[in-house]
Amino acid sequence: MPTPVPTLLVLDADPLPRLGRLTGRARVVHTDAAALAERLPAADVLLVWDFTSHAVREAWPGEGPRPRWVHTASTGVDHLMCPELAACDTVVTNARGIFDQPVAEYVAALVLAIAKDLPRTLDLQRARTWWHRETRRLAGTRACVIGSGPVGRTIARTLKALDVTTALVGRVPCTGIHGPDDLDRLMSRADWVIAAAPLTERTRGMFDLRRFGVMQPSAHFINVGRGGLVVEDALAEALSRRWIAGAALDVFADEPLTPESPLWRVPGLIVSPHMSGDAVGRHDELGVQFVELFERWTAGRPLVNVVDKRRGYVPGH
Amino acid sequence: MPTPVPTLLVLDADPLPRLGRLTGRARVVHTDAAALAERLPAADVLLVWDFTSHAVREAWPGEGPRPRWVHTASTGVDHLMCPELAACDTVVTNARGIFDQPVAEYVAALVLAIAKDLPRTLDLQRARTWWHRETRRLAGTRACVIGSGPVGRTIARTLKALDVTTALVGRVPCTGIHGPDDLDRLMSRADWVIAAAPLTERTRGMFDLRRFGVMQPSAHFINVGRGGLVVEDALAEALSRRWIAGAALDVFADEPLTPESPLWRVPGLIVSPHMSGDAVGRHDELGVQFVELFERWTAGRPLVNVVDKRRGYVPGH
Repeated sequence: MPTPVPTLLVLDADPLPRLGRLTGRARVVHTDAAALAERLPAADVLLVWDFTSHAVREAWPGEGPRPRWVHTASTGVDHLMCPELAACDTVVTNARGIFDQPVAEYVAALVLAIAKDLPRTLDLQRARTWWHRETRRLAGTRACVIGSGPVGRTIARTLKALDVTTALVGRVPCTGIHGPDDLDRLMSRADWVIAAAPLTERTRGMFDLRRFGVMQPSAHFINVGRGGLVVEDALAEALSRRWIAGAALDVFADEPLTPESPLWRVPGLIVSPHMSGDAVGRHDELGVQFVELFERWTAGRPLVNVVDKRRGYVPGH
Repeated sequence: MPTPVPTLLVLDADPLPRLGRLTGRARVVHTDAAALAERLPAADVLLVWDFTSHAVREAWPGEGPRPRWVHTASTGVDHLMCPELAACDTVVTNARGIFDQPVAEYVAALVLAIAKDLPRTLDLQRARTWWHRETRRLAGTRACVIGSGPVGRTIARTLKALDVTTALVGRVPCTGIHGPDDLDRLMSRADWVIAAAPLTERTRGMFDLRRFGVMQPSAHFINVGRGGLVVEDALAEALSRRWIAGAALDVFADEPLTPESPLWRVPGLIVSPHMSGDAVGRHDELGVQFVELFERWTAGRPLVNVVDKRRGYVPGH
């Protein structure tokens, strides 16, 4: 007797995932956010392909039938976690590994562009103005990377390769990773403070006015984690008071930023549209990763990239 | 009997070199370009502190008394070499080592900024426009670095640290360094072609329309060597015909660029004011380096960083 074919519900985004390899092995049902709640009870597996959507959080059933496994094509899970999902026995997995190197390269791009004063060079070019400046040597500067998961560790490795003295801060201190108690001290010495932590109840708003006050006036703050890590008004204030020299945000509390957002025009702030991890080819990589996990799941082998639903991220290294 | 104190002639620029350690050990005479020719015959040593000046080339005496040693606070010597200086027994040294890492970091900044589409992100921020894009993964791309001196080698090492597959091209092939015969082949495969060669009669104009035609349409060209390596009109043409995807020039045939130069507005071209090697603190480093060489010279010990005057650079690794 053939095994029943599981129903795979896909919360879609453009472009659709390439799931051809699952033909005949899954009944694939596509849904948008509006139909999600209605379709969830009949699904065995939910693939959250549209990882910008908060629909899962709102649609997740409090009781009754539900998917046994949810996979999100993202590193963060803050957009889908809710008390009901955390409490039930549904397994949640994420796209750990796909975004690490692109995010790390993006951080290196920002750090080097700032050290070498590239934004001003582009402004001067527009003004046809030859103005020679001396710029900073990156080697020998100090970075403090907050978030000790694969993204944070890859950022640290990349900065170290550029001879930046880099400290990594995680939730729990262990070899090579500082605990939260060291954060203020490390931030106060750093030239570059880089946020790459997951958004959890512990990390929400952790970069507030007090923390920016700890930083050196010559230092820069970069956020490639989640917008909610930062009290945005406090960052704007720290920049306008020149408590810190500059900042770059790739993520925001409310995305996308509207044209009316004051953040576009905060002096010393570089704004980018949540793209640090999104390299050409990622959709294929995300699709391949999901298909591999699906094959493990149907074979009854243990899944990898399993999120600790209470902590809100995949624990361990 | 005390040794006679040598006369050190300094072709100045702002800020003056800190030569306090030479007090009593050299008679230091400062000069501008206009008085150089008159003062050269009485000098034992010439320090070319103003390395943007071409005055030495014009003022060097064809015969008669002249400095026995010329040091330039730069890597390149094209601004001072002339047949008379090349033919005489005066030793020429350069500032080998001071600029390597800053130039390499500057190249990494350009490569990463281009890969991550940072100039467009800054434009979009100015327009308050949230436009998410996928950008390039730098790791796994290919670079071809032309110039196998310390600057080129440091660029190659830095790009390799970012997981860029990097080939180095020099005048003479040896272990780890390709010869000129491999240049076209390597350029045709490269995502990043980076010019860091000295300007000599062999290298002048080596990047011409034919060479840009060899490159991939997705590739970028970066020049941090000397402006004269590039046929600038050809580069502008290659860019406007989209033979290559973009370029960045930090050096130009005529510097500074005037506001009238068409190069400021070539689509796809980033223009910067010959600053790639100039990190904060370099004047101190250049001063210390010269004083150390001066101490060698007065002690009769062999100088280092000795330029092969016919080749136009310091040979060997």
